Amino acid sequence: MQTPWEYRYAYRVKRMGSSVIRELLKLTEQPDIISFAGGLPAPEVFPLQEIQEACRRVLEMHGPQALQYGTTEGYRPLREMIARHTSRYGIEVTADNVLITSGSQQALDFIGRLFINNGDHIVVESPTYLGALQAWNAYGANYVSVPSDEHGMIVDELEKALRAGPKFIYVLPNFQNPTGTTLTLERRKRLVELADKYGVPIIEDDPYGQLRFEGDHLPSVVTLDSQYQGPNGGHYSGNVIYLSTFSKLLAPGLRLAWIIAPTEVIRRLVKAKQAADLHTATFNQYVAYEVGRGGFIDRHVKVIRQVYKERRDVMLETMEEVFPEEVRWTHPQGGMFLWGILPPWMDAAEVLKKAIEHKVAFVPGAPFHPNGGGENTMRLNFSYSKPEVIREGITRLGLLLKELIVERKSG
Amino acid sequence: MQTPWEYRYAYRVKRMGSSVIRELLKLTEQPDIISFAGGLPAPEVFPLQEIQEACRRVLEMHGPQALQYGTTEGYRPLREMIARHTSRYGIEVTADNVLITSGSQQALDFIGRLFINNGDHIVVESPTYLGALQAWNAYGANYVSVPSDEHGMIVDELEKALRAGPKFIYVLPNFQNPTGTTLTLERRKRLVELADKYGVPIIEDDPYGQLRFEGDHLPSVVTLDSQYQGPNGGHYSGNVIYLSTFSKLLAPGLRLAWIIAPTEVIRRLVKAKQAADLHTATFNQYVAYEVGRGGFIDRHVKVIRQVYKERRDVMLETMEEVFPEEVRWTHPQGGMFLWGILPPWMDAAEVLKKAIEHKVAFVPGAPFHPNGGGENTMRLNFSYSKPEVIREGITRLGLLLKELIVERKSG
Repeated sequence: MQTPWEYRYAYRVKRMGSSVIRELLKLTEQPDIISFAGGLPAPEVFPLQEIQEACRRVLEMHGPQALQYGTTEGYRPLREMIARHTSRYGIEVTADNVLITSGSQQALDFIGRLFINNGDHIVVESPTYLGALQAWNAYGANYVSVPSDEHGMIVDELEKALRAGPKFIYVLPNFQNPTGTTLTLERRKRLVELADKYGVPIIEDDPYGQLRFEGDHLPSVVTLDSQYQGPNGGHYSGNVIYLSTFSKLLAPGLRLAWIIAPTEVIRRLVKAKQAADLHTATFNQYVAYEVGRGGFIDRHVKVIRQVYKERRDVMLETMEEVFPEEVRWTHPQGGMFLWGILPPWMDAAEVLKKAIEHKVAFVPGAPFHPNGGGENTMRLNFSYSKPEVIREGITRLGLLLKELIVERKSG
Repeated sequence: MQTPWEYRYAYRVKRMGSSVIRELLKLTEQPDIISFAGGLPAPEVFPLQEIQEACRRVLEMHGPQALQYGTTEGYRPLREMIARHTSRYGIEVTADNVLITSGSQQALDFIGRLFINNGDHIVVESPTYLGALQAWNAYGANYVSVPSDEHGMIVDELEKALRAGPKFIYVLPNFQNPTGTTLTLERRKRLVELADKYGVPIIEDDPYGQLRFEGDHLPSVVTLDSQYQGPNGGHYSGNVIYLSTFSKLLAPGLRLAWIIAPTEVIRRLVKAKQAADLHTATFNQYVAYEVGRGGFIDRHVKVIRQVYKERRDVMLETMEEVFPEEVRWTHPQGGMFLWGILPPWMDAAEVLKKAIEHKVAFVPGAPFHPNGGGENTMRLNFSYSKPEVIREGITRLGLLLKELIVERKSG
């Protein structure tokens, strides 16, 4: 249907990007396909009963308030709960440093809105989170890529990137999406030092930090930065804006995440949110607070860790068994994803087409690289499928990869 | 706290607007003030029991799906329900014409994102909805104002505005925010004709259309436009993008609204939403569908109409009794607001300062005028306060206005 809107799109629409991969991934939604392509939490760990009970109590005790318009900043008791939780990790923040957002994607969008002018440079790990690139492409961002290895961003390469005069550094230090890698303590410290040296602030995106099922917790970048900034150690320095979410701790269908930022930034974020969606659903905020206020999330996260560890173990074990030796992969200590590196001559998008015929799917890695490369990489999600399904899917994929390698050798 | 972010804001931040009125309105949140300033529905009409019951059923029957990530377009059964509902008003649309948004404010933001380049002209009624101006200021919109009277936009003045080559016309035909006026059938038809003559499409914002408690329902602009566009009468022509919301029918704390648009526009809106917040809360969409699917909303809206009619009547009656004859006001046939016009020499913002001392509040009308004017106007909300509270508040305000007029006459 031709409509008058067709001729009236703003320049932003052209930046919304092509959807070749998205179209390909639609094919993976067929029910008989084992898909490691999504980024879904295990529905088995959703705390259905607790949410059920919380809905009941919220509507009984606070119905009229919970269903009414709310403040743009978010429900104050929830913000206070988040501030207390954050302070446990060694930096003191108050509810005034917290803005509730409708998922972390909205936090990324607002950061673009507040900070990115057309043509600005943003330093990112390569590969990095696709959702951040999608959010910031709309504002005309350019990316300065810093390569990464099995320990996260190669911080020694960061200094060169900082000389581009970037607006900020974007980093996912824990169980990164897409690679599953964790930035080492030494690299975190070096990142903080370099950011300070060049006066470039940091966006720390930490959706999975709580989902560590192996090794010791590492201090977050925001904590290290606050300790680094002189004698006020222990107080939030404000150089790092920190993002996290309830999507992986409770349920993504509630769309609840948060931003920790200096109060001056929060004030402007509030204005941005006022223009964008007024506020995040009041009811959902009451429910999350009701579920979380007695310390439930701390107990619940142990269950999630156990389930995800089992699934990661099965995925890794099966890969060891069935993947050809030409393929390498990461060993995540937490989170939801691992990263496969195929032989350099292999195109993961081509592999995906064949994999769909074999009823198994993943995400090709190229789109996670803002400046190109990574055609031979792939992201595999281990949180969603049950262990026996993971074993079956990885086996199918391993057989296909072996086939392709044999074909190439004999061709 | 001085932070490195201070020097890094994008040009958009400067456009976020001053907040003099917003600061003033914060004062009206004191509990002993009777405030007609907000735009809140009556909490007494929230269908608590139905929502309670729907939450229970959704979590019992669809828990894992309702708490999981959802599609960007929205929950299909809800979109189908909305399409069926819309088709009842004489235009045929399908779920593919419907996008679920996180409140109507998000719909307005997306429209800005899709269509407004810096400096573009948008035709609006003056006064018009403040939320639309806030959303579109962020994208650098200019406004061509068409004056309005007690029958809505003065359509005879529209032709001149259309010669500015605007991107679109924005109109709230039913019980407009802020004036409470309704665009007459003749003016609606003329609007459609002129829009067609100049090839300028229309955004029809209709949050209150169902809340008519007096007079007959008028066909919406989208319906008239679809009938006007030649032989395909009855089919959605796509020249009008139509917005509505569950905020006034169920509860604003769920943050659920929708856009009706041509499928080509919906496709682009989906990409915008993917970058902005991925999708609207899955759980809330399941709950709204569960509440609405048996026809409950049609029954419930009758209750809302009754309650709002009573409150409007009390407000109008009290104004007749206590307001000085120099003040005029609109007589809304539905919705939540009415509009007061003070003598030309009176500044409503100054009146508000004094009103707050007298423990009563309203919104001064000037900010609703994108190109200035309206300093002597005010918006009064009648949906939120109970009848006896309305009587008391309007009496306080009437006494103050009389005082000010006497002062002026004697001064």
